Amino acid sequence: MAEVEWLEGGVTAVPGILAGGVAAGIKPSGKKDLALIYSSTPARAAAVFTSNQVKGAPVLISMDHARGGVVQAVLASSGCANVCTGEQGVRDAREITRLVGELLRIPAKHVLIAATGVIGVPLPMERIRAALPKLVKSLSPQGGRAAAEAILTTDTRPKEAALRVEVNGRPVTIGGVAKGVGMIEPSLATMLCFVATDAAVGHDALVAVTRREVERSFNRITIDGDQSTSDTVAVLANGVAENAPLERGSRGLRQLVGGLEALMARLARLLVGDGEGASKLVTIAVRGAATRRDALTAARSVANSPLVKTAINGQDPNWGRIMMALGKSAARVEQDKVAIAFGDEVIVERGALREGARLDRVREIMAAREYTLTIDLGLGRGEDRVWTCDLSEEYVRINAKYTT
Amino acid sequence: MAEVEWLEGGVTAVPGILAGGVAAGIKPSGKKDLALIYSSTPARAAAVFTSNQVKGAPVLISMDHARGGVVQAVLASSGCANVCTGEQGVRDAREITRLVGELLRIPAKHVLIAATGVIGVPLPMERIRAALPKLVKSLSPQGGRAAAEAILTTDTRPKEAALRVEVNGRPVTIGGVAKGVGMIEPSLATMLCFVATDAAVGHDALVAVTRREVERSFNRITIDGDQSTSDTVAVLANGVAENAPLERGSRGLRQLVGGLEALMARLARLLVGDGEGASKLVTIAVRGAATRRDALTAARSVANSPLVKTAINGQDPNWGRIMMALGKSAARVEQDKVAIAFGDEVIVERGALREGARLDRVREIMAAREYTLTIDLGLGRGEDRVWTCDLSEEYVRINAKYTT
Repeated sequence: MAEVEWLEGGVTAVPGILAGGVAAGIKPSGKKDLALIYSSTPARAAAVFTSNQVKGAPVLISMDHARGGVVQAVLASSGCANVCTGEQGVRDAREITRLVGELLRIPAKHVLIAATGVIGVPLPMERIRAALPKLVKSLSPQGGRAAAEAILTTDTRPKEAALRVEVNGRPVTIGGVAKGVGMIEPSLATMLCFVATDAAVGHDALVAVTRREVERSFNRITIDGDQSTSDTVAVLANGVAENAPLERGSRGLRQLVGGLEALMARLARLLVGDGEGASKLVTIAVRGAATRRDALTAARSVANSPLVKTAINGQDPNWGRIMMALGKSAARVEQDKVAIAFGDEVIVERGALREGARLDRVREIMAAREYTLTIDLGLGRGEDRVWTCDLSEEYVRINAKYTT
Repeated sequence: MAEVEWLEGGVTAVPGILAGGVAAGIKPSGKKDLALIYSSTPARAAAVFTSNQVKGAPVLISMDHARGGVVQAVLASSGCANVCTGEQGVRDAREITRLVGELLRIPAKHVLIAATGVIGVPLPMERIRAALPKLVKSLSPQGGRAAAEAILTTDTRPKEAALRVEVNGRPVTIGGVAKGVGMIEPSLATMLCFVATDAAVGHDALVAVTRREVERSFNRITIDGDQSTSDTVAVLANGVAENAPLERGSRGLRQLVGGLEALMARLARLLVGDGEGASKLVTIAVRGAATRRDALTAARSVANSPLVKTAINGQDPNWGRIMMALGKSAARVEQDKVAIAFGDEVIVERGALREGARLDRVREIMAAREYTLTIDLGLGRGEDRVWTCDLSEEYVRINAKYTT
């Protein structure tokens, strides 16, 4: 991991990036629900979208716009996902990018659009049209927090991070903003995340780096195993740092990636830590798997098991459920070779309770807000890790009545 | 479906079948925890076990014994699963089949053994050894209910069913007993189920029929998507009806299968209806899928989605979550072709809210304890169905502190 210097703030910590957020009236609560991120210069951009076969209209439009590789603004709304809204939904999303483009005097195709919220309800376009000029006026170099607030749904707090990292001897800034916190699972966690950097980066390099770092961060978290129809991660590199564009295979790109990795990991962990109803943030680390793929498969099976997640909630060292979740996964498992540790306390060896295992010590570890569960499958050298949270009564309460 | 006559009682409704249940002290509550089912004559038997790679010692022993194709007794205990208990667990399970065999004067290899309960704890063998003679003495033609009670864990009620069906012009009885109710998912629901019939059935025929009917019943239910290490379904055919043994492809076997299908479907639905914390029993029926496999994959994705299950709990017609769960599945889905109905009320057409859809009517349907959710993927002729329940706060409460 590169040496990084953490900064205050989020996406607007990056030179040349402005942001803002306003309440357009999409959310009945009257809270902020419309966010805009703007780069003073056209930025190289790469984006990754949900792999759900059901995709929201904003995702369809943004996939198209992202293909051009240049983005100057990202408009995100919360409270209504504009998914399963038919042709009207596509027309609405396209109109918004056009209006934002006109207000900012940039081409509509340089605008990405994202939305999060209830599925199946059309956007309140009158309200959005009325709010857009106000939103554009709200853009400021201090507006990152307002944008972070305006994209929240059931999140309990805004999620931002920013850092400085040295690239080819000069400082470069990376900042980002993200939201969760339900429908979170592999192949994009259900989420929005917008990252900006003032580094200049070649297009191919940016696309490759974005895909890989999303895979290592947001594709390694799970809250409930469900997968949204709206997931969007976009990375904008506006080149304000005036470095020579970083290309694939270069030392400078590796340095930037070090920063990007740290930033995305922090945002990903912020998402899990604020998972719906979550009180725990647990790293499920699998090693000794036959393959790396198997390590990930096994980790996900444990991380998604309702019985494991309720035991984490109850701070109950019910390791048999971990064995169950390993065994039901598609990863190769030989029960007599499995070892399991909570934190530094090894509780299972050769598939059974270790003699002298201190269950009271395990209970202490499980009482912490964050800990690591390490599983050694004893079969090979494959390893990977996933971040998960507990399943609580609060999760059920939040989700039993979300639309009403 | 064959015409069946439902009977009172369960497994002991079958001529020649005795059963009993006692409290051996495995459960701290002092409730019944040791069950025995006995056939007065050696029975043809077929059994299906968990496909979890982590298997309990009783499963390993029973897999071996079932291979012989003849079973005369089934011993089942609750409160301790004897899973992940190493060599000791295997020795314990083997000793129990030997002791039961001695008491009943039958070969140990004609005894199946099953256990359900906490993983990772050895069986209290002293107590079991002491209780076995009492258990054998408790065997009676009225003992089905006691056995049904003795295999329960978090179940709130015993699950039994019995019926009579005509096979080649003469009445044959089929009776069964089952328990759930957590760790319930495909490729064997987490469960025990023992079925007996007085029909004489050829061995190959019985094996084939058992596999197929388990696939159509217990492999079509889900409670929490977790899969136990102890699942066992055994079907005993003791031939007391003195019919000519039913062989594959015969009309008589088809008639028996009609009864077996009805019985297993009833027991499977009893399991889901008593799912941990469940207040709803919902049939997820998928049709119009590209293939039958796809129909099942799509139905399972919906049936297992925590967000769908919490919406069912909240009686909230949040159909967008159903679209999400379809889209994230491996089944082929084209969002513009999807239709969704709750009961007889079509709410989604061509992937969007149907004009004139009556959400108040849907809320009424969702207020019932049982209803059907029909999904038409509009792609082909594949269809299948899965039975699921809701995800409630009670589920979390039950599972957050199960071992403690």
